[in-house]
Amino acid sequence: MALIVQKFGGTSMGSIERIKQVAGRVIKEKLTGNDVVVVVSAMSGETNRLLDLAVKMGGRQDNMETDLIISSGEQISSGLLSLALKNEGYDAVPLLGHQVRIATDESYGKARISSIDSENIYKMLKNGKIVVIAGFQGIDSNGFITTLGRGGSDTTAVAVAAAINADRCDIYTDVDGVYTADPNIVPEAHRLDVVYFDEMIEMSSLGAKVLQIRSVEFAMKYGVNLFVKSTFAEGKGTQIKFLGDDKNMEELQVSSVACDKDEAKISIRGIPDKPGIAAKIFSRISDANIVVDMIIQNISVEGHTDLTFTVSKKDLKKALEITGGLAKELDAKEVISDDKIAKISVIGVGMRNHYGTASIMFDVLAKENINIMMISTSEIKISCVIDAKYAELAARILHDAFNLGKLNG
Amino acid sequence: MALIVQKFGGTSMGSIERIKQVAGRVIKEKLTGNDVVVVVSAMSGETNRLLDLAVKMGGRQDNMETDLIISSGEQISSGLLSLALKNEGYDAVPLLGHQVRIATDESYGKARISSIDSENIYKMLKNGKIVVIAGFQGIDSNGFITTLGRGGSDTTAVAVAAAINADRCDIYTDVDGVYTADPNIVPEAHRLDVVYFDEMIEMSSLGAKVLQIRSVEFAMKYGVNLFVKSTFAEGKGTQIKFLGDDKNMEELQVSSVACDKDEAKISIRGIPDKPGIAAKIFSRISDANIVVDMIIQNISVEGHTDLTFTVSKKDLKKALEITGGLAKELDAKEVISDDKIAKISVIGVGMRNHYGTASIMFDVLAKENINIMMISTSEIKISCVIDAKYAELAARILHDAFNLGKLNG
Repeated sequence: MALIVQKFGGTSMGSIERIKQVAGRVIKEKLTGNDVVVVVSAMSGETNRLLDLAVKMGGRQDNMETDLIISSGEQISSGLLSLALKNEGYDAVPLLGHQVRIATDESYGKARISSIDSENIYKMLKNGKIVVIAGFQGIDSNGFITTLGRGGSDTTAVAVAAAINADRCDIYTDVDGVYTADPNIVPEAHRLDVVYFDEMIEMSSLGAKVLQIRSVEFAMKYGVNLFVKSTFAEGKGTQIKFLGDDKNMEELQVSSVACDKDEAKISIRGIPDKPGIAAKIFSRISDANIVVDMIIQNISVEGHTDLTFTVSKKDLKKALEITGGLAKELDAKEVISDDKIAKISVIGVGMRNHYGTASIMFDVLAKENINIMMISTSEIKISCVIDAKYAELAARILHDAFNLGKLNG
Repeated sequence: MALIVQKFGGTSMGSIERIKQVAGRVIKEKLTGNDVVVVVSAMSGETNRLLDLAVKMGGRQDNMETDLIISSGEQISSGLLSLALKNEGYDAVPLLGHQVRIATDESYGKARISSIDSENIYKMLKNGKIVVIAGFQGIDSNGFITTLGRGGSDTTAVAVAAAINADRCDIYTDVDGVYTADPNIVPEAHRLDVVYFDEMIEMSSLGAKVLQIRSVEFAMKYGVNLFVKSTFAEGKGTQIKFLGDDKNMEELQVSSVACDKDEAKISIRGIPDKPGIAAKIFSRISDANIVVDMIIQNISVEGHTDLTFTVSKKDLKKALEITGGLAKELDAKEVISDDKIAKISVIGVGMRNHYGTASIMFDVLAKENINIMMISTSEIKISCVIDAKYAELAARILHDAFNLGKLNG
């Protein structure tokens, strides 16, 4: 008998009918003799509807009230799935973040889990129940509801799997696994049987929306046996695993192409070039709970320098307020921003052993006259910021250039 | 400085704009120097929408999942009002049932409050905050969310007022007080300055939807200084008080007429007349958490008797299931039901000192050829079950017969 965590996203939970299908998936797993813990997202569209209500009332993503409001979506769907399971004759129990004691910090809107009390889950499992946990939510030390950021239910699932030492964590979604690229953009894209944790982390941070990046980091840290599967179709899905398990496999240079249009670019121009200025700027932005992605600092000219960085579009307004204030303080010339950008990336653990990935990428983009505004590299990925209008074209030509369309048939 | 509890219903919380108006009401009270605790209902229509979701998934009113789902409505509105107050520069904090520790029993769908921990509320008030409590919800001893039944936010407000020893509990609603009858049915109906607790309890149990009956009982038990006021109009509202405070007032024979179309009638016919049969039937129904209102047992004929009683329409199906099973067990002839009935009532503490209230009532109904199916009386009310189609007519002619249209001008 194994202990399985299943997670179902918003599309899977999108209607009464679909939740009944989800119940079917859960029961199928239960019928193999396994103990099952389910983590659910809100019904699709619900989080946006609730967020919209909060925003209309002046709420921001980091208000505790906003978390209180938007967390109700998962509360509802956990109740509905538990009902669906009971209707089929299975004993189930819905649990909220505070009942599982998913303890987090107080960063409303993007809280981080500090601990999970597995006792209550074990107790329910011992009583033969299917445990249905409301994803996305936790509770801070003052007893207020927090949420884990978009896609946070993935993190709930993986964190719960780690806490209860589950044998497997299956993330069910509306696609049947992880793809070489977004099939909506690249028709030749196809499913990968295996993706390595390092790759998955890069892919998640680069706009592949299959898994929330923190969930992958969590799974990697705690060695959670992670799968991505389809709610609506049979199939073995994609396994996310450690590279170490596959040492002898012939590695592909690039395994996927990702495209992220959710970032915006801010430039502070004409900053007097003194030590500690970058530190000052980015600590101020980080204090506001804004994550900076790429950073470029130009070479100093006549004692002045330019600093360019990217943030999530949703953080752009706040980042501009902070940057605007800082520009005055620092006596910089001006602050400009651009939200019509895309970050196009190629990812693959094989890059470590292949030379020239970057030059192929730059070459391919140049041939189509696509200008590269920013570049960022790691051991296993290269990202370029380009004009948003070329995003899809760039994804297709890179997918082709690295022969991804020819894999697995 | 006084401590005030304000409660706002679903219509008052019906939209972003209305919640802003509610915030205005709250701030007005706060500006007089008082500490304010607010209890809110869900936005109008929300509880029904959520209940509908649960029912579509096979949920019943007494499922714990149903409570989990429908309680989210108040969670959302408490967050929205807290945001609205903060936007106006006032410090506020939204608290859920489990944070206030509104402890209840496990009767999902109509849980009863056993205790409230006032400590958290006092702490927040001491920090200068306006406390916004999600009404309608509590928590059972296992940490699961319960709800208090329709209108339960009234009970939350009064129970909180009692727990924190508030100086006043103002129930804000879409009407400006308690009326002599429903103005939609009886155009001559008008607001009463004062209603006595005993009358209010009868009125609430008889279909006047101004206050949930349990809230009035609670207020009476704990001596809560209770007012019903309008969210949208200025005015002194109606005070609910103890009769003892007004001993010398000339009492009116009847102070109001109520009409309840939410009940249905069940008859078990041809029951072998043995001792203990009524007890058996009603204990079985009570075990299912169904409240029986009126009961009539006919005189035994040839060792057989008929038993007729009324229940809420929403409990009819379940009550019929139970009654059907019992009828077989008891070898009764048949079970019949009728949901096209209305209960028309006249109420007034003055009835105690006036003779002939019942005869006036029966006489007035008879003159219009309205047949009386069941009668129930107390010291301060008389109720008659009649055909539903005569409900409005009966209300008007009784209002007129007891001169209620001529009060207060």
